[in-house]
Amino acid sequence: MSQPLNIAVVGLGRMGKRHVHTLLYRVPHARVVAVCSSLDEEVQWAQENPEYKNFGISVYKNYDDMLNHPDLQAVWVSTSTDVHASQSLLAIAKDLHVLCEKPLSTDMAEAQSVVDAAKQKPNLKVMAGFSRRFDASYRDAADKILNNKAIGEPFMVRSNTCDLRDETGFFVRYAARNGGIFVDCAIHDIDLSLWYLGNPLPKACWAAGTLQHHPELKELNDVDNAVGVVEFWGGKIAYFYCSRTQAHGHDVCTEITGKTGKIMVNGIPKANNVVIADKLGMRHEVQPEYWQRFEDAFALEANEFTDSVLNDKPVPLAMEGGLMVMHIGRALQQALLSGEVVKFNEKGELL
Amino acid sequence: MSQPLNIAVVGLGRMGKRHVHTLLYRVPHARVVAVCSSLDEEVQWAQENPEYKNFGISVYKNYDDMLNHPDLQAVWVSTSTDVHASQSLLAIAKDLHVLCEKPLSTDMAEAQSVVDAAKQKPNLKVMAGFSRRFDASYRDAADKILNNKAIGEPFMVRSNTCDLRDETGFFVRYAARNGGIFVDCAIHDIDLSLWYLGNPLPKACWAAGTLQHHPELKELNDVDNAVGVVEFWGGKIAYFYCSRTQAHGHDVCTEITGKTGKIMVNGIPKANNVVIADKLGMRHEVQPEYWQRFEDAFALEANEFTDSVLNDKPVPLAMEGGLMVMHIGRALQQALLSGEVVKFNEKGELL
Amino acid sequence: MSQPLNIAVVGLGRMGKRHVHTLLYRVPHARVVAVCSSLDEEVQWAQENPEYKNFGISVYKNYDDMLNHPDLQAVWVSTSTDVHASQSLLAIAKDLHVLCEKPLSTDMAEAQSVVDAAKQKPNLKVMAGFSRRFDASYRDAADKILNNKAIGEPFMVRSNTCDLRDETGFFVRYAARNGGIFVDCAIHDIDLSLWYLGNPLPKACWAAGTLQHHPELKELNDVDNAVGVVEFWGGKIAYFYCSRTQAHGHDVCTEITGKTGKIMVNGIPKANNVVIADKLGMRHEVQPEYWQRFEDAFALEANEFTDSVLNDKPVPLAMEGGLMVMHIGRALQQALLSGEVVKFNEKGELL
Amino acid sequence: MSQPLNIAVVGLGRMGKRHVHTLLYRVPHARVVAVCSSLDEEVQWAQENPEYKNFGISVYKNYDDMLNHPDLQAVWVSTSTDVHASQSLLAIAKDLHVLCEKPLSTDMAEAQSVVDAAKQKPNLKVMAGFSRRFDASYRDAADKILNNKAIGEPFMVRSNTCDLRDETGFFVRYAARNGGIFVDCAIHDIDLSLWYLGNPLPKACWAAGTLQHHPELKELNDVDNAVGVVEFWGGKIAYFYCSRTQAHGHDVCTEITGKTGKIMVNGIPKANNVVIADKLGMRHEVQPEYWQRFEDAFALEANEFTDSVLNDKPVPLAMEGGLMVMHIGRALQQALLSGEVVKFNEKGELL
Repeated sequence: MSQPLNIAVVGLGRMGKRHVHTLLYRVPHARVVAVCSSLDEEVQWAQENPEYKNFGISVYKNYDDMLNHPDLQAVWVSTSTDVHASQSLLAIAKDLHVLCEKPLSTDMAEAQSVVDAAKQKPNLKVMAGFSRRFDASYRDAADKILNNKAIGEPFMVRSNTCDLRDETGFFVRYAARNGGIFVDCAIHDIDLSLWYLGNPLPKACWAAGTLQHHPELKELNDVDNAVGVVEFWGGKIAYFYCSRTQAHGHDVCTEITGKTGKIMVNGIPKANNVVIADKLGMRHEVQPEYWQRFEDAFALEANEFTDSVLNDKPVPLAMEGGLMVMHIGRALQQALLSGEVVKFNEKGELL
Repeated sequence: MSQPLNIAVVGLGRMGKRHVHTLLYRVPHARVVAVCSSLDEEVQWAQENPEYKNFGISVYKNYDDMLNHPDLQAVWVSTSTDVHASQSLLAIAKDLHVLCEKPLSTDMAEAQSVVDAAKQKPNLKVMAGFSRRFDASYRDAADKILNNKAIGEPFMVRSNTCDLRDETGFFVRYAARNGGIFVDCAIHDIDLSLWYLGNPLPKACWAAGTLQHHPELKELNDVDNAVGVVEFWGGKIAYFYCSRTQAHGHDVCTEITGKTGKIMVNGIPKANNVVIADKLGMRHEVQPEYWQRFEDAFALEANEFTDSVLNDKPVPLAMEGGLMVMHIGRALQQALLSGEVVKFNEKGELL
Repeated sequence: MSQPLNIAVVGLGRMGKRHVHTLLYRVPHARVVAVCSSLDEEVQWAQENPEYKNFGISVYKNYDDMLNHPDLQAVWVSTSTDVHASQSLLAIAKDLHVLCEKPLSTDMAEAQSVVDAAKQKPNLKVMAGFSRRFDASYRDAADKILNNKAIGEPFMVRSNTCDLRDETGFFVRYAARNGGIFVDCAIHDIDLSLWYLGNPLPKACWAAGTLQHHPELKELNDVDNAVGVVEFWGGKIAYFYCSRTQAHGHDVCTEITGKTGKIMVNGIPKANNVVIADKLGMRHEVQPEYWQRFEDAFALEANEFTDSVLNDKPVPLAMEGGLMVMHIGRALQQALLSGEVVKFNEKGELL
Repeated sequence: MSQPLNIAVVGLGRMGKRHVHTLLYRVPHARVVAVCSSLDEEVQWAQENPEYKNFGISVYKNYDDMLNHPDLQAVWVSTSTDVHASQSLLAIAKDLHVLCEKPLSTDMAEAQSVVDAAKQKPNLKVMAGFSRRFDASYRDAADKILNNKAIGEPFMVRSNTCDLRDETGFFVRYAARNGGIFVDCAIHDIDLSLWYLGNPLPKACWAAGTLQHHPELKELNDVDNAVGVVEFWGGKIAYFYCSRTQAHGHDVCTEITGKTGKIMVNGIPKANNVVIADKLGMRHEVQPEYWQRFEDAFALEANEFTDSVLNDKPVPLAMEGGLMVMHIGRALQQALLSGEVVKFNEKGELL
């Protein structure tokens, strides 16, 4: 068997641990050789984890040290958004391939610097981690819309990302560093809209939000439920609903309308194929979070990244693709805070 | 406006009252002139009912007296199964049009006598009340299957009639006179099977049942849940599930499989278009009983019967159509009781 | 039986004819005594209609003449929006009860004048015709939300009215007089939002639209697909999607999110209970237009109006309720045309 | 990392190849060291397969030779039903762990001999391959029914296995050796029934079948669509529909009714979360075959078998569990052929 890809994961929060698990069990051509966290408790947890020991994974507290791990080939950046860019830049500088979680940054110039650095090293695979692009249903929708023209010219996208209400305080702690509800939560919805609508340029956007369950967000200038509309040049429109406070589970739906039809992805969220009929009527459960909904997508994403490196193929989602997504996410956040319409010129640049 | 049809309803149980209501409010060309019940409390209830008074409805305790009501033209027989036939015969003898609730009888010879009597008076409209034939969805299915050949040659029917568990004792009291679970509860399913399969003749049938909630049925030789299979000559099959004990509501589904497709009617029962999403997941309610599911069908049935009389059109469902339904229902009941296969000759007669 | 309500219908377009039908066949306590149209062909059609003749309906070309029809008690105004108000005023002046189709006007002052006139005659029943308020599912949702607190405090409404694409030219002709997409098409969605959210006052709104199929609308300053967001004082939000160009049918959905749950009405539109499974997968049909979806609601509306007059009960939906709906619809239309945010003071008045 | 399990797969038909794929990519603790087929073309295909070469898989034509592969620990028997038992016996004789595809045999005595041989070597893990037991939804249903008592005492199971019509001739060739429709196709449904109903003993069964698309089956005494009912001692019932001829895809549904509720698994089959709305209405696609529906279940099955060997845990599904399933499958087949009821004594033995 050919040599597997030696990969390291930086960030051992909830997501980082899951990426390690995915790499260990669902990516036969990758080998996790190192992990890294700046948090003592995460480092300790990793050091004491018998599974990590079993698989021979080295644990680092210092990111630079991890980058020097012998024969390391690639890094999966899975830390909080505020260090995505700097860590990606360091890895690129070390000639390491990079798969970086969305969003690349909350600052456009910083994000651009990563894209620029990547361009300097065309031999490196530098990929943006928009997991939904790897979900079987979203891909099927893209295939039907873009290849089969199943709905004619698409012109309208409705997309929502609604999380189960978190009662543990985890979300509120995490919110301080994520860039606001549209940058953090709508980022996939914006990305999907650009994908399905053929990468139109934004013309104007507006947003409105409300605080229902997490008053602590007020001092972060954030909300826990928000609606945003983006008008694109060329008569296309996307609108989004983001929520942190759903009672029933992780409810993520995208609906694309075209001239001759409509496609819905995940219109009715379901945890599995089970329906219970009893005195309350008929019901099904909903997955509690994105992991249950997108676990397979993360596995495919990791496999395709691995394949692109090992077999020198283009990455399925180039880093620069994430820039416009961020740009729009930030504009929506600005509209939310200002209450005013944010407008763009015909190049999609802020007026 | 042309003269409406003067009609009387005999039987003022749950169903009889509903038929009166339907005639009053949803059948503009009919006029309820009389009702009749052999039960004192029902007679008293009707006499004291201001709505009945308002509409000028005469209340009878004696059926013969009711038949002599001035200018009466038609009778809707809505009593218990054991008197359906005798009351229909009396009405026919009086030259009255008859709409008789299913099933016509629990005795084949008696049922045949009604059909024979009706044939003697071809000017009379004598109709079997299989309400599902008037439901918009079942009709659409019939149109697709029989006219549009949407599923090719149909050869298999699955149909179930599952009632909400009755905790009031009403059902058990009523069960004593209804002829058993297959005659009472599967009767619509058998009728639908014959309709969709093109009136095939039975070859063999078998059934199995169980008593889960109503031990009182044991002395009636009946069960509260049963499954039956009917094999028809020509390679067609229908199978049924009847239940008196559902927790979630009135769950009635029919599925017809043909050579090139399948049609489901009411695969997922729903009370209305409302879905609730909360900590339990996503759920909808189910109608508690047949009335909510088939109220519109009863209205259409009454309107079509009225139209057939007033405009001298053939009745939409001739009385003799009900004979084979009963024949099969009784054979399934026999199979249930005996544990043996019941077989038929090529004319569909019991061997 | 007590005397029925003598009612006239003005306007014999598609909707007016349907209202006559509803009154004739589904409102036992009403009697259609007259109809009126300003269009010669409609007058002729009505005069030659044997059913109208049969029911003894007088046909008028002149509205004033119709108002003088002997013993007339009530008028159902079912003309185009631009004459709703003036015809309602004339009827009120004649001491006639009025059920006026939505919206009352495209001009706020004119609409207010009808409300004022109605207030001068408290004995008259003057009702706004928002048919969805009479739909069983929307009512069930209201009952669950407002009475049972099934989703806690509601704060977010998504609602869309998406019509089947009309290829006959009917819609475009009709569009010239309807006040624009938000006033005509979103009017029910706005009304439902106010109902479910407890009549909050608007704070700001914005909208974006596109022209996909009906370029003729450009000169009317209108679009055929539009999205609008309304932010209310108190942290509530409603957002809408209106479309004239759906391929699959009349797709009307409302989703209400509250602090502890969500309710969807008509999330997946269905023509009936039939599902077809064949080489294309599994599918169901969708009702082609609002009539199939809301026919029962129109019947209930007519019955409740009739009941309110005959039994001197409050009308289920007072005329002034429609004013705020129009106000918001017009503001969305203004936002659509200007591309700017439309803002309101704390009384909900335009800034 | 601890040593992986060295496993060989015998049988390189459609299913065998899939098992190899599963082991290579989704079972990190197993290593495929050998494969075997008696068919020259399959052997050649495997020998020339670069992936197999890459993973270092030895290819055998002779089963005995494969059993002597160095350090082999386990065999996955994935051949046609007629050699399942003899190959399992040979593996057991060699002290190899065995995972054998369902059904173990079409002959009860032969099947019993495997169970007996396994009992002689309690150190060996010998497991029956009923894949649906490893599906997340079926497991969730079992958890809800057996552990949470979500539907009270279960007493009725409806289960169907309906395959997409095969137009390639593959199925008909394969049918000659599979034991008939109830032994081959209903085997999972019977197994699930026993699981959910708590392993009741059969009392009587009957079946009816029809030939719609594959007349070649007539000489095999088989049908392509069949319905069967099993009555168990203790008032429990299961009924099945098997089909080889569906137009829309692989449609597998199980419904369990208990005293206080009902659970449906896969009531509406779906390929993914995509819904298309266009002129035909709204539709979703259905997975074409069991692999798309149960791929994850096969992976879990392989992982759990591997885990039971490596960590000396009981197999999740003991071999003898398959005996009663076969016994009932054969009885249904007998009923189908004879047209008579097949009866059992209170021990579940044929009368």
